[in-house]
Amino acid sequence: MTSPLSRRAFLGVLAAGAVSAPALGQGRPVVDGAALRARLEGLSIFGRPSGGSFADGVSRVAYSDADLAGRKYVIDLMRAAGLDPRIDPAGNVFGRRAGTEATLPPILFGSHIDSVPSGGNFDGDLGTLSALAVMEALAAADTRTRHPLEMAVWCAEEGVAFGKGLGGSRIVAGDVTPADMDQVWNGLRRADAVRRIGGNPDRITEAIRPKGAHHAYLELHIEQGGTLDRTGVPIGIVEGIVAIERFSVVVTGVANHAGTTPMAERQDALVAAAQVVTAVREMVTREPGPQVGTVGQLDVSPNAANVVPGVVRLTIELRDLSPEKLLRIMTAIRARVSAIGQATKTRIEIAPLSRNQPALATPAIQDAIARASGALRLDTARLPSHASHDAASMAQLGPMGMIFVPSVGGISHAPGELTRWPDCTNGANVLLQAVLDVDRL
Amino acid sequence: MTSPLSRRAFLGVLAAGAVSAPALGQGRPVVDGAALRARLEGLSIFGRPSGGSFADGVSRVAYSDADLAGRKYVIDLMRAAGLDPRIDPAGNVFGRRAGTEATLPPILFGSHIDSVPSGGNFDGDLGTLSALAVMEALAAADTRTRHPLEMAVWCAEEGVAFGKGLGGSRIVAGDVTPADMDQVWNGLRRADAVRRIGGNPDRITEAIRPKGAHHAYLELHIEQGGTLDRTGVPIGIVEGIVAIERFSVVVTGVANHAGTTPMAERQDALVAAAQVVTAVREMVTREPGPQVGTVGQLDVSPNAANVVPGVVRLTIELRDLSPEKLLRIMTAIRARVSAIGQATKTRIEIAPLSRNQPALATPAIQDAIARASGALRLDTARLPSHASHDAASMAQLGPMGMIFVPSVGGISHAPGELTRWPDCTNGANVLLQAVLDVDRL
Repeated sequence: MTSPLSRRAFLGVLAAGAVSAPALGQGRPVVDGAALRARLEGLSIFGRPSGGSFADGVSRVAYSDADLAGRKYVIDLMRAAGLDPRIDPAGNVFGRRAGTEATLPPILFGSHIDSVPSGGNFDGDLGTLSALAVMEALAAADTRTRHPLEMAVWCAEEGVAFGKGLGGSRIVAGDVTPADMDQVWNGLRRADAVRRIGGNPDRITEAIRPKGAHHAYLELHIEQGGTLDRTGVPIGIVEGIVAIERFSVVVTGVANHAGTTPMAERQDALVAAAQVVTAVREMVTREPGPQVGTVGQLDVSPNAANVVPGVVRLTIELRDLSPEKLLRIMTAIRARVSAIGQATKTRIEIAPLSRNQPALATPAIQDAIARASGALRLDTARLPSHASHDAASMAQLGPMGMIFVPSVGGISHAPGELTRWPDCTNGANVLLQAVLDVDRL
Repeated sequence: MTSPLSRRAFLGVLAAGAVSAPALGQGRPVVDGAALRARLEGLSIFGRPSGGSFADGVSRVAYSDADLAGRKYVIDLMRAAGLDPRIDPAGNVFGRRAGTEATLPPILFGSHIDSVPSGGNFDGDLGTLSALAVMEALAAADTRTRHPLEMAVWCAEEGVAFGKGLGGSRIVAGDVTPADMDQVWNGLRRADAVRRIGGNPDRITEAIRPKGAHHAYLELHIEQGGTLDRTGVPIGIVEGIVAIERFSVVVTGVANHAGTTPMAERQDALVAAAQVVTAVREMVTREPGPQVGTVGQLDVSPNAANVVPGVVRLTIELRDLSPEKLLRIMTAIRARVSAIGQATKTRIEIAPLSRNQPALATPAIQDAIARASGALRLDTARLPSHASHDAASMAQLGPMGMIFVPSVGGISHAPGELTRWPDCTNGANVLLQAVLDVDRL
């Protein structure tokens, strides 16, 4: 086995001008944009609202009938492309194309096709069907790579079912125990869900891949934010997937009669919680940078117009590439919250809820994407991903890079999600050229 | 018919020193405090949590089995006291004691015995059983009044069933149409509910009484706030029942991905709503006075940790004796809300939800209560009632006055509601002496 890319790349072995390598010469492979569009439209049927059109989005929640039908559609296309699709014990679908050097680890690339309820037709679908388009373009141009190529269709990325996102890729990265298969969601046992999509819950740990299992992992995805769309840049080079930290906050005051309790004697949990919401936004925006912070969930008890609120429960979520920055912001929030509790005579408790480590994109892969974009004369911008992706799982096993294309208006996880067809094709072509570039590393 | 009290009192006809009138001389009637306590404990059985004690409070929601059983307990006591209890078409219970001048309108006094779920044993119960104790004390001392005396047990005061409070007294004051009997609450038709407690929904409008129907209405009630308890004053003379204005507020922003939506581009409905909550408290406390304002209910949509809130619905409730002050405060809130909407790029709509006019206590009745307290050497304080009471209904028909006794810690509508026994007895004796004082007006 060759040493994985990360080691070589970090040693500065990369040669400049690799973009003029043989694969970019005569017979240069190009993605068929019309076919890509046709497949995106074809896949959109599965989970489309009844009587709706492509613009009405899709509900293709993992393990649902729509998910099964969508998977069959993609698997059939993979088979037709000669990729010999197989389903691993977790339910992920893989298809391989041999390289010229059989002992090399594969270049892995793909995405997912499950969606949130009432989601869009580009999140995941674009990366999955572009991976297929790359395989087909290479076949059409009869281009051979040194490394084997492997396309992945990750299952249950959205985390609608069984709570955690990156359901399939998380398992491949080693985050699974046999007991996880006993989880129940909406009356469905996870083992049965996995079996339903062709996985094997009894051998679930056999889905785990070792570190170094891939030469590089690449994923094309829509940005989901509005930065590329707003600035008119067609290709985003992801610097990394942000850390996500969630906290639960419980504000405890005293529920009391909204008429007979004088203002000065109130211990109003909502008055305190409102100041916490304001403090989160202030502390997050106090220093420049792309970090974000959200209070997305807030529940009042007893929640009656004529009762002073006694308890408020809320969540704080912070995202940034730098865990140090998140710690700094959270420390400032905690100090402010302590003052709010004293001023409002309430007790405010903050407990960590979950923490996703950041996944930095490998600099050598970012550079490969930059070269691939340059060869196609496409402008690029480097930016963090504030959403999580299967690439975060794969970064634990080896080098990782992600390509973003613009989302119109930054809309995502909604039927109005849209990436224009030329941007889709550009993204797929950058993925193709990046695969070829990385193959030479 | 004598001209009603209000007209005479406002003309300044009242003589000083009325407290030394015959009824306060030899054979002076006094409430039996031990019997009052025994009846409060006896009534507490009906709706008591299974296996609980008096301190565990009561759930005697109007029209429930517990309410029916409690009503029977009180009606039996009224019958034993010779009050010949009768139920009006609304379900209110009345019992009369003749006066020496049969043509005079009655002095009406009483309260209610229904409770909120998990309420206390003093709210309503004390006023009701004290009214009975007054009747019994007068009989024991063989004291005749000029005016007939009428005791009222109002039904459905708490407004748990069928939404509106003061359910029974509201009807007597004329706020009812036959169509109201078609309302449905928890699968129960209001006509059936009224029939269940002995009322007659087919003749509901016959429960309405005309203006001038009573010489005066008096009600003893626990304060429910903490003012008397904190200042150690045993008797409160209510200046009036505050106006209550409720508004519904809808804050509309844009729901979006909590990761991929930059802070500067958010239209976060909860960030805006938090500022509204803060503004309500600031505008209410900006000028001195006993006015109160509450945001008691707040609902976030979609309410997920990883989604920027798109819509928040909340209520604003304001209470004060002065509608002008409430208008001033609400105008200030509206101005602030308008600025919040602009700053947060959200749309904030405010709509009136309900408005209860204030009910001022008749000054001559307030003075009668003051004389009654003075004769018993009990200190008094004048204060508004920030909770609504059946007295607000009766104020629409004639002169009204209310007596408050201390609530320990201001706790009410909760099992911990407590008024100490001596305070209960003092309150009942002030009610008795006030009835006798008002009888001479």
